[in-house]
Amino acid sequence: MNAAATAAAIRAGQLRATEVTEAALADIAARNVRTNAFTEVTAARARAEAAAVDAARAAGRDPGPLAGVPYAVKNLFDLEGVTTLAGAKIERGRPAAARDAFLVQRLRAAGAVCLGALNMDEYAFGFTTENAHDGDCRNPHDPARVAGGSSGGPAVAVADGLVPLTLGSDTNGSIRVPASLCGIFGLKPTYGRLSRQGSYPFVTSLDHLGPFARDVTDLALAYDALQGFDPQDPAQQQRPAEPVAPLLGAGLEGLRIAVADDHFARNGHPEALAAVAVLARALGTTRRVTIPEAARARAAAFLITMAEGGNLHLPDLRARAEDFDPATRDRFLAGALLPATWLVQAQRLRAAYRAVVLAVFETVDVILAPATPFVAPPIGQAMTEIDGRILPIRPNLGVYTQPISCIGLPVLAVPLADPGTAGTPHDLPIGVQLIAAPWREDVLFRVATALERAGICGAPPVPA
Amino acid sequence: MNAAATAAAIRAGQLRATEVTEAALADIAARNVRTNAFTEVTAARARAEAAAVDAARAAGRDPGPLAGVPYAVKNLFDLEGVTTLAGAKIERGRPAAARDAFLVQRLRAAGAVCLGALNMDEYAFGFTTENAHDGDCRNPHDPARVAGGSSGGPAVAVADGLVPLTLGSDTNGSIRVPASLCGIFGLKPTYGRLSRQGSYPFVTSLDHLGPFARDVTDLALAYDALQGFDPQDPAQQQRPAEPVAPLLGAGLEGLRIAVADDHFARNGHPEALAAVAVLARALGTTRRVTIPEAARARAAAFLITMAEGGNLHLPDLRARAEDFDPATRDRFLAGALLPATWLVQAQRLRAAYRAVVLAVFETVDVILAPATPFVAPPIGQAMTEIDGRILPIRPNLGVYTQPISCIGLPVLAVPLADPGTAGTPHDLPIGVQLIAAPWREDVLFRVATALERAGICGAPPVPA
Repeated sequence: MNAAATAAAIRAGQLRATEVTEAALADIAARNVRTNAFTEVTAARARAEAAAVDAARAAGRDPGPLAGVPYAVKNLFDLEGVTTLAGAKIERGRPAAARDAFLVQRLRAAGAVCLGALNMDEYAFGFTTENAHDGDCRNPHDPARVAGGSSGGPAVAVADGLVPLTLGSDTNGSIRVPASLCGIFGLKPTYGRLSRQGSYPFVTSLDHLGPFARDVTDLALAYDALQGFDPQDPAQQQRPAEPVAPLLGAGLEGLRIAVADDHFARNGHPEALAAVAVLARALGTTRRVTIPEAARARAAAFLITMAEGGNLHLPDLRARAEDFDPATRDRFLAGALLPATWLVQAQRLRAAYRAVVLAVFETVDVILAPATPFVAPPIGQAMTEIDGRILPIRPNLGVYTQPISCIGLPVLAVPLADPGTAGTPHDLPIGVQLIAAPWREDVLFRVATALERAGICGAPPVPA
Repeated sequence: MNAAATAAAIRAGQLRATEVTEAALADIAARNVRTNAFTEVTAARARAEAAAVDAARAAGRDPGPLAGVPYAVKNLFDLEGVTTLAGAKIERGRPAAARDAFLVQRLRAAGAVCLGALNMDEYAFGFTTENAHDGDCRNPHDPARVAGGSSGGPAVAVADGLVPLTLGSDTNGSIRVPASLCGIFGLKPTYGRLSRQGSYPFVTSLDHLGPFARDVTDLALAYDALQGFDPQDPAQQQRPAEPVAPLLGAGLEGLRIAVADDHFARNGHPEALAAVAVLARALGTTRRVTIPEAARARAAAFLITMAEGGNLHLPDLRARAEDFDPATRDRFLAGALLPATWLVQAQRLRAAYRAVVLAVFETVDVILAPATPFVAPPIGQAMTEIDGRILPIRPNLGVYTQPISCIGLPVLAVPLADPGTAGTPHDLPIGVQLIAAPWREDVLFRVATALERAGICGAPPVPA
């Protein structure tokens, strides 16, 4: 049962939130060992929240649009009474969070039930969720393969059916990459759309939060519940919530859809490009559009990430470098040692690139681009061949996502319902990015719904 | 005659623009040698523009609110057909500007007549206008003293009566410092208020443009003519022009005015603090307000300036360092060598500081603070005593201006009409900053007008 059906059944009194919660807790207890998605299960909290939902309904009060829906969050979200790990050993000694993150408050207010916290790359600085402290998060479609990252736990928990909704963060692709590798839907909204208050930062000028789900209806339900102005996040703009759920049936009339060429038609394995072609065919578009300077924009995103991330962790790098995950430490150190002039250049390029890309959206509403350059690689594999060159896998997992998020565009990562149609190795999942102009999540949801209804997109079943 | 009276006489047909222009050209020819304010006199252009104003009036067309008013601009503004020097030898080989800067277009459209380009510190990186290529700009109140900078030429041209209006730029104080040392009014509007298109940048995240005048009426007339949205400056916000001229008689009713303490009550010679006290007394306020963390904000502004400026000039620093003014070269080089983590820290501090200072404006409308820590020092003097320590003069000229502009607050620098009331050495001029919340230039003009009408503020006469 998806989130929408669960909430509907609970709201109708056909199901109790406490039953749903117990079932989810049992599922997690039985199956998390296979993927290592959860780092903390908040059973007591979940039971209390579920009981409150049932009590509200029994008392005739509205239990909320997500009544009794189980969810979990990347462990960089504050959960009251839980230490926020951000995937790091260093954070383990810190006090528990005094209150929930803003988005957790929103989900709670909508009636959802929090089941726990989820695995991630240390400090969100990675694309695979191979975490030295908490252990690797494994892909439910093949536990010998990575989940993608840095929101690996949230993607896996949804892909594996442990909970229908999770929250992740995306700085350079950390929602879209694991969504693609695990075969589910993931939304990186417009920069500034959802409040980040109460989440562990990585690169404040690039950080986004967003939901994962197995279908578009659930993703819309979650996204609509998460919206709301919060003056405590300085990136937030004071604009009204713009619900997308009412638009899901609006169709594609009037939408100009094109496939990104150039950078987005290179740099990947054939299945990544084939996945985009499958969607383009289904949408009946042969249009191509060029996002200029994407490779330079990606380089700028790297530099900004390194410099801001290195600065953020400099005190710990100085005092206790040995406590970092080796996979992140040396990159943070390198970032702390960058010259300022590189950062200025990157920020200037980013501003110019943003202006150029915004102009592209005068002629197109939705751009299709690959989400990842290949399917989930085996855990531990370092290199792969791309366009005839042997290149490192981990940074290249973000080759298509970084040039989009660094200017804050909203992106919905959609999975191929049948990965075989793109000829993926071993029928492993793969996703595609639907990209729109800032604040135009609405058109992304319209396109995703059309693709889902046509059977082109959807979460492939996980092997038993 | 001030700009308002000149325009009124020309509009009424009592005076011709061509007469006014010839008189100004003669004045400049006779008297610029004393101060070295002008680096280029655009006589042909001025005569053509003046003739066009006279022709418009003769034909019954509106010649504009600044009809026939002579003005000149810091030589970092593009003037069609003139090479934009930005005070630099390096720029001398570049082609002439193809068109006027946006603000020059605005003044031309208002009927003003452009007399030429004015001296400045190389690439605007200085507070004294001691320029190795064009020669020092000298203070009209004592030509052995500096004019202040980096908009020294624009301040001197107005203080010396060569033209009633000029335009300058202010990154860390470059309008307010020379306004104070030359005893005239200077406006640094809210960051993003006036378009910078067609001006030579220094630090794009800190650069502001604004006018100088000898009285508040002229300053308001110029400022109102300069307003207008220009999509070509990415810092511009699409908001309507907010004319201040209609508010000049509005009085002080309802305005909460306070004197900045802490950082702004230290770090200067007695006359700087006495000038503020004179204004506070005239305004009948005994309120004090603390702008927290001003010293750290100033440090952040330094780092951002160094890093952005160093990046901007890095190609020339690499290729032809010997062509820079020695006064700027080594600081630009140092900026290019800063570590990125310092810049990130500075940008973070600046964002936090902005939030804190905006909160201060919930309890106050206008803050008084010194504009400069002392009167104009002798040209070439390097050090002075401040609070018992021997400190370098040049950077410390911005000690009070930098913490204000780095978060884009609007500031009107007003001169003491009688510097003797503050006990300045040799009766040299000194100014005070009137500071407001973003987009509240209106309250600054109301306070300045009240002080001018009370005889407290005004440009002191220049010795013959």
